Amino acid sequence: MKKGNRFAGVYTPIPTPFDDAGAVDEQALRSNVAQWMRTPLTGLVVLGSNGEAPQLDDAEADRVIDIVRDGVPREKPLIAGTGRESTKATIAASARAAAAGVDAVLVRTPAFFKSQMTAAAFIDHYTRVADASPVPVLLYNVSMYTGVTLHAEAVEHLAHHPNIVGMKESGGDIALIAEFVSRTPDDFIVLAGSATTLFHALCAGCDGAVLALAALLPDDCVRMCALVREKRLDEARELQRRLLPLGRSVGSSYAVAGLKTALDLIGYRGGTPRPPLTPLAPQATEIIRGQLDALGALAVAQSS
Amino acid sequence: MKKGNRFAGVYTPIPTPFDDAGAVDEQALRSNVAQWMRTPLTGLVVLGSNGEAPQLDDAEADRVIDIVRDGVPREKPLIAGTGRESTKATIAASARAAAAGVDAVLVRTPAFFKSQMTAAAFIDHYTRVADASPVPVLLYNVSMYTGVTLHAEAVEHLAHHPNIVGMKESGGDIALIAEFVSRTPDDFIVLAGSATTLFHALCAGCDGAVLALAALLPDDCVRMCALVREKRLDEARELQRRLLPLGRSVGSSYAVAGLKTALDLIGYRGGTPRPPLTPLAPQATEIIRGQLDALGALAVAQSS
Amino acid sequence: MKKGNRFAGVYTPIPTPFDDAGAVDEQALRSNVAQWMRTPLTGLVVLGSNGEAPQLDDAEADRVIDIVRDGVPREKPLIAGTGRESTKATIAASARAAAAGVDAVLVRTPAFFKSQMTAAAFIDHYTRVADASPVPVLLYNVSMYTGVTLHAEAVEHLAHHPNIVGMKESGGDIALIAEFVSRTPDDFIVLAGSATTLFHALCAGCDGAVLALAALLPDDCVRMCALVREKRLDEARELQRRLLPLGRSVGSSYAVAGLKTALDLIGYRGGTPRPPLTPLAPQATEIIRGQLDALGALAVAQSS
Amino acid sequence: MKKGNRFAGVYTPIPTPFDDAGAVDEQALRSNVAQWMRTPLTGLVVLGSNGEAPQLDDAEADRVIDIVRDGVPREKPLIAGTGRESTKATIAASARAAAAGVDAVLVRTPAFFKSQMTAAAFIDHYTRVADASPVPVLLYNVSMYTGVTLHAEAVEHLAHHPNIVGMKESGGDIALIAEFVSRTPDDFIVLAGSATTLFHALCAGCDGAVLALAALLPDDCVRMCALVREKRLDEARELQRRLLPLGRSVGSSYAVAGLKTALDLIGYRGGTPRPPLTPLAPQATEIIRGQLDALGALAVAQSS
Repeated sequence: MKKGNRFAGVYTPIPTPFDDAGAVDEQALRSNVAQWMRTPLTGLVVLGSNGEAPQLDDAEADRVIDIVRDGVPREKPLIAGTGRESTKATIAASARAAAAGVDAVLVRTPAFFKSQMTAAAFIDHYTRVADASPVPVLLYNVSMYTGVTLHAEAVEHLAHHPNIVGMKESGGDIALIAEFVSRTPDDFIVLAGSATTLFHALCAGCDGAVLALAALLPDDCVRMCALVREKRLDEARELQRRLLPLGRSVGSSYAVAGLKTALDLIGYRGGTPRPPLTPLAPQATEIIRGQLDALGALAVAQSS
Repeated sequence: MKKGNRFAGVYTPIPTPFDDAGAVDEQALRSNVAQWMRTPLTGLVVLGSNGEAPQLDDAEADRVIDIVRDGVPREKPLIAGTGRESTKATIAASARAAAAGVDAVLVRTPAFFKSQMTAAAFIDHYTRVADASPVPVLLYNVSMYTGVTLHAEAVEHLAHHPNIVGMKESGGDIALIAEFVSRTPDDFIVLAGSATTLFHALCAGCDGAVLALAALLPDDCVRMCALVREKRLDEARELQRRLLPLGRSVGSSYAVAGLKTALDLIGYRGGTPRPPLTPLAPQATEIIRGQLDALGALAVAQSS
Repeated sequence: MKKGNRFAGVYTPIPTPFDDAGAVDEQALRSNVAQWMRTPLTGLVVLGSNGEAPQLDDAEADRVIDIVRDGVPREKPLIAGTGRESTKATIAASARAAAAGVDAVLVRTPAFFKSQMTAAAFIDHYTRVADASPVPVLLYNVSMYTGVTLHAEAVEHLAHHPNIVGMKESGGDIALIAEFVSRTPDDFIVLAGSATTLFHALCAGCDGAVLALAALLPDDCVRMCALVREKRLDEARELQRRLLPLGRSVGSSYAVAGLKTALDLIGYRGGTPRPPLTPLAPQATEIIRGQLDALGALAVAQSS
Repeated sequence: MKKGNRFAGVYTPIPTPFDDAGAVDEQALRSNVAQWMRTPLTGLVVLGSNGEAPQLDDAEADRVIDIVRDGVPREKPLIAGTGRESTKATIAASARAAAAGVDAVLVRTPAFFKSQMTAAAFIDHYTRVADASPVPVLLYNVSMYTGVTLHAEAVEHLAHHPNIVGMKESGGDIALIAEFVSRTPDDFIVLAGSATTLFHALCAGCDGAVLALAALLPDDCVRMCALVREKRLDEARELQRRLLPLGRSVGSSYAVAGLKTALDLIGYRGGTPRPPLTPLAPQATEIIRGQLDALGALAVAQSS
């Protein structure tokens, strides 16, 4: 019984489009999902960091899940971000997401009380959440946003919980990623979360990835996994080099605003993020346009 | 017209007690508030970090404000924490708090998308919140929890908004505190938020403080302000030295769990924090008991 | 017997001027020392960080001490930086400096093997150095340059060594400075090393300061000490506010190159630092000129 | 003309043994070198960080090079660390090392004046050193010890200097390592310096490594390079997992003291480091003994 293996593959953490009034733009969301369903992506992650989950209220979050589930065929995994600051709220959000039909929940570390977020606190939190969740749980470590780190000791312990089937690691610390891989059972999947170190994470043994970049370049991201699997390292390394600038733009440099703008440029519906996130400055838009063009993504958009 | 001066003074950010089932313990909260009202504290801050605000849902938060407002006489300032990750939710929370009768709102920086939280983003966020808020706004910089910093440039700009009357700075960077004081108008108040640097912050020109320690030792915290005001620096420095160990315990070392345990030890009702926060370990309890004893706080509790 | 008290006061860590060929410019050095001797400075520190000590060889260092000692009357304390990476070399440098007539040595923490620089390692190092040194030793913590920190535990221990009479703390962590003051005997002096937090460090109990800024504005720096001693806090705070921009320029912003340029602008002989340090860019020179002008230092220079 | 390719391979940065009086133990050094010459190591690095170079004086450094050169056949590359804080002293040390017959110099970044160590300052420094050096120069970035980082922009620029043939990167930031590889010409070699990320660095395109671990396990380190070259990734990943604990011990955990103790345990002559470095604590020795045993290194030592 390979508990996590059904979730191996390449996902994108889809952004949440807003309309001019700042409400969730349901039509844009449906349209985007339909487009991604025509790509080789394994599945979608909804309400991740790129989905601006911390900025949505519970009613909005529930609605987003419903809409996306509606557009994702049952055979494709749909994973929802349900992490909250309290264990109680995380359990409640996971239950609601499960009821809405998601296949797994991706639970980012609670992080507000940083000095108190010890390995013991994380183990206790995730054990309670996994005990209660009707669907499998994926751990989610995203230190660049949370300022805390889920260390290998805690992951090693939690990987033996029957309802914890894997994790997403969003950082680029390759030694840490390698430890997650080597200290967990084979059926516990580790998904890379940083496009800037995708090739390296796959070499280290990751089972796939959840990447903002995959919303823009799903074929290239899927191809990277294939190249590493086939040990075509020189080609993979070269592909990584080519993906790096755009990977940075939709990662640490411009984050959600960058991703949304890039989507607009290739024919999806991105729009602007919710305040306090600010719209992308014009010169950043031009940088991203140039990066998409260099990767051939603009041409595809224009011809389609 | 001294816009912020009515909020100068010493406050404590009260914790939220929970009952055995994990619900807000309203009776314990009422009892604590009544006790603090018999101390020389200027007023109370409700739903701050020590109130475990990030772990309460909106209905709980509203209820907590109602209960506390009920126990705080109108002439004493009641300030509520209403910071949320989105500008929209912050505005809504501030409106609800104002409707419940708080005198001002304390709005911590949004912080999830750290790399995007530029001075411009903060200025835009706080301007929108202050424009909308029915009651005065206090900025709240708490880098140890948020991982972001509200820099002096943004504060200098925001200090001129008619509805932004001051700020709480929870860190101990004395050069930054001094800049907040020197670059804002006299009627913009700066409240110190770290007991471990209280004396220094007051020397630097702070107009008061919001301190977990003040929940335990209100007289000493008020006395510190008086000593600095009267330029009795040697006595103030000595008092700071005495307060340091307990200040650390209820600050970075044990945080909310430490504060709640300390309250239990001196006759208030603290209890345990909400998970993922964990109860204090027994040896930490003994450390805190010793620190309270050294300050004479246990004796007071036992004789009363 | 007040072991360290004779070293209380205001010092400047003098830069080492170089001639066009990159050799120590002895004439310029003599000239500068003579000028400082006409100011109210307590004494001089030679071969500190601002003296580019890590960039001089031993023969140059010895020569610099000789020249400066020659220009500083016996009744004024001359302190020499003698810290090296190995304990052995530090002991040798201290012996040579003592033989050249310095009154005390200022020994920065060894720092190369950062992870190994534990409190125990520092205690052992400084004990050996102090045991061997013919003249009193001052500890020197300068984390911005060394990347290591001498913690309060180690300082508290070392302060009881009969030949360790004080320390210079170059950082702005006011809680740490306060601990150095409160955990050491009265006759162990703590000298502030950061102009940007001078006022605060003096309030915290420092016995004086060693400041690059004092090379430029000796009267103002001495006056700050007097103001705090006389508890004229408002005037001191205002003076600190005025000194801040230039303090930053000759501190973290432009460091030695900034200090040397500023000296050139007010009639001392600064010149350029030794590579890999680079000369100041023209726009930085203009910034410093403006800051000196705002403080009245240019006018003094031109009229003298 | 492949300028750096003759330096590709696996090296160890040999420690400097001291006798009981603290002087360089020349006999121990000769003996160790002779032993390494019977391993498959490509060559040796003398006076690196593990050689305690910052703690040796120039005369000692010169003597160490002479001794090691004497024991290393001309066809094996001998590389000497010659980085100093000043450009001038670095040029002098490189000239002396070249005169003593080393094949290349490894020049760590100057680092004392951290805030001033800009890309421009590094480019200027290394250009002057490379212009003057009689032998090829390797850049050396070791942020864990220096606290500064040589960024990809500077390396890209410097890689075109005819006398700069490669670099050693001691950190584990795989994205940075990949940039060094992708932004430099093919004949500029990048050597990995961290055993804990060796496999990953080789996947990223490194041309070899300089590893303390290779002093203990030269065969395994050489084998890792072969496995990656042959794309036997599963075996390489497993080898990396096995090497990790000891790699950490002789890296960040116990550094030079750990390496020296490990050498003693396998039949080389390590001894204790020079103060302020402290001898290894007994329990750390037992940890290292267990790690060597788990890797079969003790048995080899005992049987030989």
